[in-house]
Amino acid sequence: MAQVLYDFTAEPGNNELSVREGETITITNQSIGGGWVEAQNSRGEVGLVPEDYIEVTPTPSLGNVAASDLSFFDAYAPASTPATNGNDPWSAWNADPSGGSTNNWASNPEGTQTGKSAPDPWAPVSHGHPQAYQGPGAEDDEWDDEWDDMKSTGGYAESEAGESGALQRGGSHATSMKISLNKFPGFSKSGPELYLLCKQLVKGKDRLPIYVGEVGPVWSYPETQLDCVVADPKKGSKMYGLKSYIEYQVTPSTTNRPVNHRYKHFDWLYERLLEKFGSAIPIPSLPDKQVTGRFEEEFIKMRMERLQGWMTRMCRHPVVSSSEVFQLFVTYKDEKDWKMGKRKAEKDETVGVMIFSTMEPEAPDLDLIEVEQKCEQFSRFTKSMDDGVKEILTVGHEHWKRCTGPLPKEYQRIGKAFQNLSSVFTSSGYQGESALTDAMTAAGKTYEEIAQLVAEQPKKDLHHLMETNNEYKGLLGCFPDTIGVHKAAIDKVKEGDKLVAASKITQQDKVTMAKRASTMSYALQAEMNHFHSNRIYDYNRVMQLYLEEQVKFYETIAAKLRQAHSQFTTM
Amino acid sequence: MAQVLYDFTAEPGNNELSVREGETITITNQSIGGGWVEAQNSRGEVGLVPEDYIEVTPTPSLGNVAASDLSFFDAYAPASTPATNGNDPWSAWNADPSGGSTNNWASNPEGTQTGKSAPDPWAPVSHGHPQAYQGPGAEDDEWDDEWDDMKSTGGYAESEAGESGALQRGGSHATSMKISLNKFPGFSKSGPELYLLCKQLVKGKDRLPIYVGEVGPVWSYPETQLDCVVADPKKGSKMYGLKSYIEYQVTPSTTNRPVNHRYKHFDWLYERLLEKFGSAIPIPSLPDKQVTGRFEEEFIKMRMERLQGWMTRMCRHPVVSSSEVFQLFVTYKDEKDWKMGKRKAEKDETVGVMIFSTMEPEAPDLDLIEVEQKCEQFSRFTKSMDDGVKEILTVGHEHWKRCTGPLPKEYQRIGKAFQNLSSVFTSSGYQGESALTDAMTAAGKTYEEIAQLVAEQPKKDLHHLMETNNEYKGLLGCFPDTIGVHKAAIDKVKEGDKLVAASKITQQDKVTMAKRASTMSYALQAEMNHFHSNRIYDYNRVMQLYLEEQVKFYETIAAKLRQAHSQFTTM
Repeated sequence: MAQVLYDFTAEPGNNELSVREGETITITNQSIGGGWVEAQNSRGEVGLVPEDYIEVTPTPSLGNVAASDLSFFDAYAPASTPATNGNDPWSAWNADPSGGSTNNWASNPEGTQTGKSAPDPWAPVSHGHPQAYQGPGAEDDEWDDEWDDMKSTGGYAESEAGESGALQRGGSHATSMKISLNKFPGFSKSGPELYLLCKQLVKGKDRLPIYVGEVGPVWSYPETQLDCVVADPKKGSKMYGLKSYIEYQVTPSTTNRPVNHRYKHFDWLYERLLEKFGSAIPIPSLPDKQVTGRFEEEFIKMRMERLQGWMTRMCRHPVVSSSEVFQLFVTYKDEKDWKMGKRKAEKDETVGVMIFSTMEPEAPDLDLIEVEQKCEQFSRFTKSMDDGVKEILTVGHEHWKRCTGPLPKEYQRIGKAFQNLSSVFTSSGYQGESALTDAMTAAGKTYEEIAQLVAEQPKKDLHHLMETNNEYKGLLGCFPDTIGVHKAAIDKVKEGDKLVAASKITQQDKVTMAKRASTMSYALQAEMNHFHSNRIYDYNRVMQLYLEEQVKFYETIAAKLRQAHSQFTTM
Repeated sequence: MAQVLYDFTAEPGNNELSVREGETITITNQSIGGGWVEAQNSRGEVGLVPEDYIEVTPTPSLGNVAASDLSFFDAYAPASTPATNGNDPWSAWNADPSGGSTNNWASNPEGTQTGKSAPDPWAPVSHGHPQAYQGPGAEDDEWDDEWDDMKSTGGYAESEAGESGALQRGGSHATSMKISLNKFPGFSKSGPELYLLCKQLVKGKDRLPIYVGEVGPVWSYPETQLDCVVADPKKGSKMYGLKSYIEYQVTPSTTNRPVNHRYKHFDWLYERLLEKFGSAIPIPSLPDKQVTGRFEEEFIKMRMERLQGWMTRMCRHPVVSSSEVFQLFVTYKDEKDWKMGKRKAEKDETVGVMIFSTMEPEAPDLDLIEVEQKCEQFSRFTKSMDDGVKEILTVGHEHWKRCTGPLPKEYQRIGKAFQNLSSVFTSSGYQGESALTDAMTAAGKTYEEIAQLVAEQPKKDLHHLMETNNEYKGLLGCFPDTIGVHKAAIDKVKEGDKLVAASKITQQDKVTMAKRASTMSYALQAEMNHFHSNRIYDYNRVMQLYLEEQVKFYETIAAKLRQAHSQFTTM
């Protein structure tokens, strides 16, 4: 059962179901994906409804898995009073239940992922549901067949998703469902043993060395950094035009040869990266499936911009960008190559905590106290930064609203008031009036221009500041999980003596576990150092950009006013 | 009977009466003046209460005069929801019942005077009642004896104030009561006959020639314009310090010898000028008795600034500034000189419409159609300008509130957010962090400085724009009366044939009336041309000043941001 939060009008031919705010519907299939659920209304009609438009009602008959599902739903249910400024791509932040309040951060990692934008309930129907581009009904699409294939063959039954099944699932193929029940297999606190106690470490080319550089442990960085351009979004269609989708061109700097990808392919890549690296490396969520945008063009541009940001961040990461799956994504030769690569990636067993088995720190082992201290330090830092970033987002959001709302209106009214007075003066019939009235009219127009400048400015500067902080908010939201894995490992190592005493593990196992916790710590430190160096670059860059545009803005206004000033004369 | 609108706490020793909001009191003396009335509370205590703190309840037992008094009270009663921004000297505009609505303009001249500021009910008691400086009890003051003398000997009984008594009063001494029941004797529509039919015109040095210049009829302008500096306010006291008042130094450019005047002397001058010239020349009200100001110093400064503005405007007027009474005010030699001059001025019989008897246009007579057209044109123009000026005041008031309220708070929050993020970064423990954190802190501080600049800016630029428009609002509020006198004269001339037929006037009287209406029209045209030339100068000047300060403001911000920008580096 679910409660409808907003009116939703079905688009004809899209297998959708129109629902009204306050209506109660029954969810008949939650695993549709793409932001949709299948639901039945009280008249027995069945169809698809955007999952963000509904709030699932908890019922006692649901099991453990469904319950965790529900908390997931709750965390992302749009607030009942969404921000009214439809032009503001960040309006959903206000609706983010974790925004501002940071209490959930440590205790409820699910609440800290990038807030999914609530669909704008005021957007025109024809553009309001951009997810329709990769909507349901994927089984009709040849290109997508294998995708859905994989979902049914490579996944696991829902009943396995409980805590008890986590250990077994660790090394196997994890879910590729759109709604991940657990973000990655290593999330379970019983996870780290798999690595801590595994028999054999990965050797050869999959090895991930960790060096000690000037700043401490660091990943191995390639000589030239990979870069990708996401561009040229093209509308494709299938089923004789009944379904349409957007395909983006991705061009890596290495081959300079473009490959095409739909959003769902990015999503597939994200799932693979999360599965493979998520225990060690924060893999930020993809841009929200539903970026708010009143118009199709605006929506596509916004999504592309954010996909570009996501790709750039992945390219910059030495471990991620050099991985086979990532290389496949940016350099596959043809469809066959892509299909084979996909299947291989989905069969990869070095996922979850097992990624640590590939890591080789070229440094002496750390003792547990150091490991724990580092972990605590990173936890504190990422939490504080999460608070700081959210504060900027909140303040920036307020400022955005003011700059696009009341402020330009006020400048416009000032401009109009000057011009009106000028018209009155023109009617005086007094000689020698025109110099003043011309100047007053010009001054009035100048304030109207300033109104325009003020309203357009946020797109030029605040936008980037917000995007960067939003990206960091997403990135920081991954840390509680990553750090959680480390804490779980530390706890396990601390239990060592007890486990030995209980004959659950050998003395040698205990030593191995401590050594491996040290490896994990080196990985975390390398990752933090990567994070810091990127952060310093990103914030320097975005602040430069912001201030540069702000300077231009104020200088432009000053120049316009100077011009207006020059027209007045007191002889 | 009156209703108390705001709490008022009596100052000890000032003969005041404490009252509470909602209390009903009985007014025992309405002619106290200085913004005070004497009232009795339900416990029988009698004392002074500020008239703006109460609302008079109309009762049927009151006569005509009292009724007109009541409408006067109503027009100025503070709105029950006064603006909350105590720092904004224009907050009273919102409470001005005629603000925005211009319907009253033509039909109810009393409603169009400069809105009297409501006393700020939130001001601290010790500074909240600045009118206490020239409060009641003037009979204790030697300096003021003659003033009060005049009121009782030179005035007329209240019962004379009705419409019927207007003609007889026309040439005699008008009221010097603080609350004028009619603004000037000529206001009555029956007034103009006094001049239209008078036997003898003024000759000699009191003659006011009207020339025809490039722009049309003009007053005779002196070669050098009189100027006055109002400065150096000094607190004086009387009654062994029980009463205190402020004395301003007025220094005319002609003698360069300062004379001292209290506000009540300015008020006396205003009454004289209004009485003498008001039919022909708009005499703007003095600055409100109660300028809003939280602190004594601020109040004194504000009043002085506005007295200066008023004096400057009077000095600039060739007819006013060269008048005997104005010259007396700025150049009296000693107390004896002042006293004698005062008595003489109060005995002046060339007041009200009789001022036109001094005017001699050096141009051919205008026919009645021309006279009427000019009058209509001026009426339309002054009404439109009144609307335009009020719009600027409304918009400016809004802008003032935003610039001193939410906007700087927002910049402050942006600044804090940057600085907070900078502190978080400092805690990273990562090497090479300090360049970024220093830059972020500097950027944050810059936005705090901008907040300060934004909040202080209105005092530098908007203030002058508002003051000038406020002055013009006051000036324009005088035109309905001035134009009303002309319309009444035109109507009377139109009745000419009928009056001749009824043997009320002779044929010669009719011709004389038409000629005198022409003289009045020349006077009105000369006055309008004076108004226009001043207006063009004033608006050029204030717009220059406003835009100059605005340019400086935006350039300062740009420079500060440029400085902040330079501290970021992406190597």
